[in-house]
Amino acid sequence: MENFKEIDKPKSNCAVVGVYNHPQASIITYYALHALQHRGQEAAGITSIYYDEVKKKKKYAYTRGSGLVLDVFSDPDILTNVLKGDCAIGHNRYSTTGSSTKANIQPFNMIYHSGILSIAHNGNLTNTLNLRKKLQEEGAIFQTTTDTELFLHLIARSKKKNQIEQIIESLQQVHGAYSIAILTENALIAACDPWGVRPLNIGKIKTENGWSYIVASETCAFDIVNAEYIRHVNHNEVVVIDQHTLETGEFKSYKIFQETPEAKHCIFEYIYFSRPDSKIFGHNVDKVRRKLGKNLAEESPVIPEADEKICVISVPDSGNTAAIGFARVNEKLNNPSVFEIGLIRSHYVGRTFIAPGQNNREFKVKVKFNPVRGVLEGRNVVIVDDSIVRGTTSKALIKLIREANPKKIHFRITSPPIKFPCHYGMDFPSKEELIANYYDSEEDIAKAIGVDSLHYLSIEKLLDSVPKDPGIGYCTACFTGIYPIEIEENSDKYSIEE
Amino acid sequence: MENFKEIDKPKSNCAVVGVYNHPQASIITYYALHALQHRGQEAAGITSIYYDEVKKKKKYAYTRGSGLVLDVFSDPDILTNVLKGDCAIGHNRYSTTGSSTKANIQPFNMIYHSGILSIAHNGNLTNTLNLRKKLQEEGAIFQTTTDTELFLHLIARSKKKNQIEQIIESLQQVHGAYSIAILTENALIAACDPWGVRPLNIGKIKTENGWSYIVASETCAFDIVNAEYIRHVNHNEVVVIDQHTLETGEFKSYKIFQETPEAKHCIFEYIYFSRPDSKIFGHNVDKVRRKLGKNLAEESPVIPEADEKICVISVPDSGNTAAIGFARVNEKLNNPSVFEIGLIRSHYVGRTFIAPGQNNREFKVKVKFNPVRGVLEGRNVVIVDDSIVRGTTSKALIKLIREANPKKIHFRITSPPIKFPCHYGMDFPSKEELIANYYDSEEDIAKAIGVDSLHYLSIEKLLDSVPKDPGIGYCTACFTGIYPIEIEENSDKYSIEE
Amino acid sequence: MENFKEIDKPKSNCAVVGVYNHPQASIITYYALHALQHRGQEAAGITSIYYDEVKKKKKYAYTRGSGLVLDVFSDPDILTNVLKGDCAIGHNRYSTTGSSTKANIQPFNMIYHSGILSIAHNGNLTNTLNLRKKLQEEGAIFQTTTDTELFLHLIARSKKKNQIEQIIESLQQVHGAYSIAILTENALIAACDPWGVRPLNIGKIKTENGWSYIVASETCAFDIVNAEYIRHVNHNEVVVIDQHTLETGEFKSYKIFQETPEAKHCIFEYIYFSRPDSKIFGHNVDKVRRKLGKNLAEESPVIPEADEKICVISVPDSGNTAAIGFARVNEKLNNPSVFEIGLIRSHYVGRTFIAPGQNNREFKVKVKFNPVRGVLEGRNVVIVDDSIVRGTTSKALIKLIREANPKKIHFRITSPPIKFPCHYGMDFPSKEELIANYYDSEEDIAKAIGVDSLHYLSIEKLLDSVPKDPGIGYCTACFTGIYPIEIEENSDKYSIEE
Amino acid sequence: MENFKEIDKPKSNCAVVGVYNHPQASIITYYALHALQHRGQEAAGITSIYYDEVKKKKKYAYTRGSGLVLDVFSDPDILTNVLKGDCAIGHNRYSTTGSSTKANIQPFNMIYHSGILSIAHNGNLTNTLNLRKKLQEEGAIFQTTTDTELFLHLIARSKKKNQIEQIIESLQQVHGAYSIAILTENALIAACDPWGVRPLNIGKIKTENGWSYIVASETCAFDIVNAEYIRHVNHNEVVVIDQHTLETGEFKSYKIFQETPEAKHCIFEYIYFSRPDSKIFGHNVDKVRRKLGKNLAEESPVIPEADEKICVISVPDSGNTAAIGFARVNEKLNNPSVFEIGLIRSHYVGRTFIAPGQNNREFKVKVKFNPVRGVLEGRNVVIVDDSIVRGTTSKALIKLIREANPKKIHFRITSPPIKFPCHYGMDFPSKEELIANYYDSEEDIAKAIGVDSLHYLSIEKLLDSVPKDPGIGYCTACFTGIYPIEIEENSDKYSIEE
Repeated sequence: MENFKEIDKPKSNCAVVGVYNHPQASIITYYALHALQHRGQEAAGITSIYYDEVKKKKKYAYTRGSGLVLDVFSDPDILTNVLKGDCAIGHNRYSTTGSSTKANIQPFNMIYHSGILSIAHNGNLTNTLNLRKKLQEEGAIFQTTTDTELFLHLIARSKKKNQIEQIIESLQQVHGAYSIAILTENALIAACDPWGVRPLNIGKIKTENGWSYIVASETCAFDIVNAEYIRHVNHNEVVVIDQHTLETGEFKSYKIFQETPEAKHCIFEYIYFSRPDSKIFGHNVDKVRRKLGKNLAEESPVIPEADEKICVISVPDSGNTAAIGFARVNEKLNNPSVFEIGLIRSHYVGRTFIAPGQNNREFKVKVKFNPVRGVLEGRNVVIVDDSIVRGTTSKALIKLIREANPKKIHFRITSPPIKFPCHYGMDFPSKEELIANYYDSEEDIAKAIGVDSLHYLSIEKLLDSVPKDPGIGYCTACFTGIYPIEIEENSDKYSIEE
Repeated sequence: MENFKEIDKPKSNCAVVGVYNHPQASIITYYALHALQHRGQEAAGITSIYYDEVKKKKKYAYTRGSGLVLDVFSDPDILTNVLKGDCAIGHNRYSTTGSSTKANIQPFNMIYHSGILSIAHNGNLTNTLNLRKKLQEEGAIFQTTTDTELFLHLIARSKKKNQIEQIIESLQQVHGAYSIAILTENALIAACDPWGVRPLNIGKIKTENGWSYIVASETCAFDIVNAEYIRHVNHNEVVVIDQHTLETGEFKSYKIFQETPEAKHCIFEYIYFSRPDSKIFGHNVDKVRRKLGKNLAEESPVIPEADEKICVISVPDSGNTAAIGFARVNEKLNNPSVFEIGLIRSHYVGRTFIAPGQNNREFKVKVKFNPVRGVLEGRNVVIVDDSIVRGTTSKALIKLIREANPKKIHFRITSPPIKFPCHYGMDFPSKEELIANYYDSEEDIAKAIGVDSLHYLSIEKLLDSVPKDPGIGYCTACFTGIYPIEIEENSDKYSIEE
Repeated sequence: MENFKEIDKPKSNCAVVGVYNHPQASIITYYALHALQHRGQEAAGITSIYYDEVKKKKKYAYTRGSGLVLDVFSDPDILTNVLKGDCAIGHNRYSTTGSSTKANIQPFNMIYHSGILSIAHNGNLTNTLNLRKKLQEEGAIFQTTTDTELFLHLIARSKKKNQIEQIIESLQQVHGAYSIAILTENALIAACDPWGVRPLNIGKIKTENGWSYIVASETCAFDIVNAEYIRHVNHNEVVVIDQHTLETGEFKSYKIFQETPEAKHCIFEYIYFSRPDSKIFGHNVDKVRRKLGKNLAEESPVIPEADEKICVISVPDSGNTAAIGFARVNEKLNNPSVFEIGLIRSHYVGRTFIAPGQNNREFKVKVKFNPVRGVLEGRNVVIVDDSIVRGTTSKALIKLIREANPKKIHFRITSPPIKFPCHYGMDFPSKEELIANYYDSEEDIAKAIGVDSLHYLSIEKLLDSVPKDPGIGYCTACFTGIYPIEIEENSDKYSIEE
Repeated sequence: MENFKEIDKPKSNCAVVGVYNHPQASIITYYALHALQHRGQEAAGITSIYYDEVKKKKKYAYTRGSGLVLDVFSDPDILTNVLKGDCAIGHNRYSTTGSSTKANIQPFNMIYHSGILSIAHNGNLTNTLNLRKKLQEEGAIFQTTTDTELFLHLIARSKKKNQIEQIIESLQQVHGAYSIAILTENALIAACDPWGVRPLNIGKIKTENGWSYIVASETCAFDIVNAEYIRHVNHNEVVVIDQHTLETGEFKSYKIFQETPEAKHCIFEYIYFSRPDSKIFGHNVDKVRRKLGKNLAEESPVIPEADEKICVISVPDSGNTAAIGFARVNEKLNNPSVFEIGLIRSHYVGRTFIAPGQNNREFKVKVKFNPVRGVLEGRNVVIVDDSIVRGTTSKALIKLIREANPKKIHFRITSPPIKFPCHYGMDFPSKEELIANYYDSEEDIAKAIGVDSLHYLSIEKLLDSVPKDPGIGYCTACFTGIYPIEIEENSDKYSIEE
């Protein structure tokens, strides 16, 4: 339920974009960020590097602000006159309340001994606190409360002469999940942590002056700018796009560590985060999601009464594909089924809205959705959704659907129960607030939410649904509690208020 | 394609809401207006009437502003402290560029010899110019360029003592389409013109103090406030809700003219304007729209090649229901078919957005939609849509879908070709701009838009799809050029700039 | 004390400006309004009339907003592109809290049977309530709560064919004080009520196309636009500037009533309202104000001790001229005296400012003024001020000056005690709040305010200070209670809240 | 001419304020900054330190913004709820266009190994470029383009354990002019560079809880908060206000360098920068300014014709005191003279205003000032002003005064000709733009500006006018080109754009 992000869903932490050698680099970045808006709606920023004809040197310009991409850059002058130059990087930010200060909006820029460097980061580091302490003792002054700033200080303090070496040296010191885009005066660098937790992709755009290159968290960002998909950045890989690339069409590629471990891609990217029209880690999200719906129907079909068709609906828009998959397999299993539009979603509700006199969640759901009585009344209804976090929104939604008088409501979830926090970039509520930790069985949760039946997809069928490639594994920590990357104590708690 | 309103769709002119005897009258009005946001997004307003304890008399308060309902009333203080009282009326406005001045935002209020009176109007009058001239010659000073203001002057000049009589007398003088809500110090009055062109409905809400009453353009406004549907306001009817209603549960009902003609409901309300989850003129919009899709498949099915399934998609969200109906009947006609989600819509595009460096329509479509390659590639695709106006957006959309490499694209429209202007409240472009007037055949339009086949629903099948009740007919003027209500010359052209 | 307007001074109600036949009419109006900002700081507006080449007819444009002139028109596009045309009128508004709604900001415009007409009004009518009632009974709809709107309705209802006749007919029906500028499609009309309570002046500006004409409340508006002063509009006079004026250099002049009474110019315009660099009623304000200071010293000189010089200061900036006059005459009377700058005024305090934690008046005075200790310490100080209304600000100011340790503080006021309300356009607090009604003697007031001595100018010396011309008298109602124009009951109390 | 700052005057660089142990520390800082608004109008900021009861530790809060103090803190919630705590520092900023980015607004805050530290700085360093380069090579990341940030990096890198020692060590490394306030978790520190170029003063305020301490650039900031003046911070001195001060009433005082050189106070602080009601460097500004006027009259009196009085005026408000002094001495020299108010200044012109259609300087002067014809016409006028920079504004002002038809205009300047740039904090235009470098003689400048005579005060008489204390000298570099503190090449040119 992409649309419930603000209420009761895990929250992704950010999208990154980088553009190299495009006459409208910041405009391309802007559209790509817009296409990735679902990964972070709290703030956005773009930094570009250009050559100053008067001063005969490279300079940078940036704009960062709270809100959606289209709003932060609503003054057209910013993109056309301020963010000049043929290369740029950008960032969409999601942040928890405590640290949503303006200073934390990326990209972060610095001028240091080797020149200009700007960075955008998706993911979460796990040794933040110790690194900050160490740097501070050496006299470093921190300007933000983000883990991302660590990259800058580590790079600025590197004694290596070559910028790529400085960057690799700094990546070897941080632990955790990161997919980053770095812009320097001469290159666009894209890198993924040794486990490749978050996705990052490379594409190219034909321009009048030859090829321009783009990196982005998901490929839906390529479609909007007519970019051609090349490949994704591998785990443990640093890709350098520079003059050499323009001349030869090839990237330089480096390893962060000598040894490359098995990848641990975030499986939730397939379940919910990424857009269905994207490719991530080399595969179509849409196809995986349809498979999730099919596997779910096989595991827990819904059987109609005589002369009845099961009415399969989704919560628009994110559950659609899985629901269609579910309906089809349920039908094949001799359970007459049909996919229907059972909820109308308002297009006029922004991220925050006033609900005077009506502050309960139920009402907020009502302002966003209205059930179609003609579709639901007297029917046996299956709602296919991707996950349940706290369960509060699900409960409110079910209550809303009940008002349309369906005969029965069956709830089917395309993921296993979420029971553990994520330390690699998803923002779940605390363990105690997760409904799957509060109740013992599917039956109890069904009762709490108010549905006639409830089934989660099993971990086995989940793993069966995602692509299986050599050397590629998945992080399923939020379902299993098995964390592939070590977590240092308090590492994700540093803030200016500490 | 509800979502393309701002680009290339007929535009409805407004929604009206009225609430009587509710302790949170303006809050109820606010939510109802939000549910009716699709009928007008340019401006919104609410007027409430309350009893001033200090001055011992009734007073009114109002707030009006440009933008969406949630934005105009974003300061919670407005609804809770400014718009006091237990009765209120509200209005959503759509306006053409020329006259979108603030002065034209409804409801319009006046204090006149009989006290406070406020009005909200949906529709379009057809004898505006002559009435304005006449009133002006008598010394009337007009403050707006709307036809709605005429009601106020006519009422203020009536010599009748009774307010209901003043109102009926004024309604007898105006020609055209109107569904109005009027609030006085003692009553809420709802009225529809003799032909009932635009919908208006009555419902009630249980409160701690008994029943509260509500009128609204569509019943989706009732769902959001838990109101119970009673009936719709009939054509040629004036309904009065007052103290008598609270005591007896009955409305007083008056006729505007002695003779009630056959109704001429706007058939486009069923095709596109109203929300699928609404009831209008006593019937579910959703059911009509599904029937339109079914009839369309019967008239012009799409036949697959061997071993192929036809992929039926809609432009989210308004075409969904018709597309599902189309897929089902096409399948029944032995053409294997499946409804799919072929376009992902961005939820982050507001009504206006900046497209720097990319000012063509094609790009605007791209910012809003992305085709799902995995669904469309190599498929025989049917797109079901409700209407084509200029054809420019359709063309851009088809081009976008082509990028996903479908085998073929078939375009099916759930209405006949639009060829004539509407004088009763829809805002079409000029006759010359309508694509159906520019080309001679479906084939030519198909070629212009870039699809492999194109079929419009016939007028017969259209009329077959809508409810048939005694005394009820439909206005089909935009397809047929037959106007049921006389149009005076230049009647819809009066503006402050004339 | 011009600078204390917002705190404790009578408040003027407005400035009017009109410009005829100037290629930059609205820009000229803008600067003139800025020069007259002291007459009203709550809102400002400009209406211009231009010829629309496309539609081949005259049209009007207007902009009105709350705040200072420079702020309301801060978008340069407004003056250069919106307010087109070669004639314009403008208005600065002061309003009491209760009725400061946007609808009340002038100029007021209408299109009526004889075309476009716009009006700007300075003054206050005294038969408002009865006129409104009468018009309302005839079906008139009022849009504002101002007395000014009456002019429009009366003109629109006039049966006269000629616009000048319509205007004169309407002026004959209103009672009270008014200096007005009216703009029609063909003429700029300036008129003063039969008693000429408020000032209005006529000037001309040389342009490339010959002479342009301007009318304004005070002549300081002429200086800023390089206009040449011609004469003031007489009481009971209607002056018409039109094509005839451009051709001959002459105005048409009409009488409102056959009989012209003795003028009753507002004497407070000389004492405080008008700027010292203005001419009003044909005379320099500066010279009158200096005479007030001289007469005050003659009536109540301050005698120094041996070897001492009296230190004469003013409250910057309005009291300066009178203080210099006082110092000079006091010196001539053998009381060694010197004018000093004893108070520094902050230029950074706008009309409203936040005084967190310090909501008393004393503090507000402190934020605006700081005494110069080096000047005041140990001195015998005379403060010359123009009037005392409530006395609260005076008291706070005296306390502030005491902090600089003067030996003694003598307070000298260039007007008699204010004891009565003004019904002709000044906004005093209620009678009970006037300090002169609360205490019996100058001694008691001196004690209350905290000064060592206090003297008001006598009514005789006041009248001696102002120009004496045949047929010219003065309204001194606020000092004497003698009202030259009849006041109808409740006439100044009509508001939308009644 | 304080009021012409934005047009053609040297520009001061900033005011600093610090408050220790006051229950409303940020509110006191706010009022003090308002009183010092004349020293910098482009931006303002406040940082406070408070104890967080929940986290059991000290934290800081800050607010910084562009504009006037009253505007930046216009939301009362900021001062009462955000900027909590009993100690605070604040800053008013003036900046040149190029570097007016938001990042440069002070105070600057950091959390470093020794805790929280915040700094506010008035002055200009002269070894910025070398220091930045050195620090950058060590891995420091700069966030601003100001010299002030150097203090933070030097302190954070100090190996000293004690914060006072860290601060003194860092002060020993910077060269140039600085008067700074530093706030730590335990102390308020005030320091002046070895030459004491800019003023800094210490005062105390009685509160319910004993004494609170305040430091501020000028003592007019003490008056507004009822603070008692104690003394000024000496050159080469670091003053520490901490718990010890609260207990004993004494400050700890340290020297920056062992050897204290002769002070070199900025003489322009007396001539123009500081407010006349302030004490700086231990003396009343007002008295010095009056002496300047007197000495000027002695050097270059103006002689009237028979039966004539010389009319001495100033440009309000800054020239007033000197003009009064001039008038008095001129009279004593047997030249009958009188001080008059010859120019009325508009209080309604903010720092930026729109002058559509009139973009010349002359017009801008006109919007701000109007000559009083009644005072000036036919008179022999002396205008006393403090300095001439480019001369453009003076020229425009003289032209304006000529419109009032004076007989003659004599221009008298209370400072010598400005011929050299300031490297210690004043922002003059380039040497070529200074009118005194463009013309050879007073006669030529007089002709260029359009006056009948012109005289500057001699450097000798200037030095005669200022206080003479042992060990105290003055920087007169802008007149003489003799710079008391060494200037490193390009030191004042570092910016993000380099």
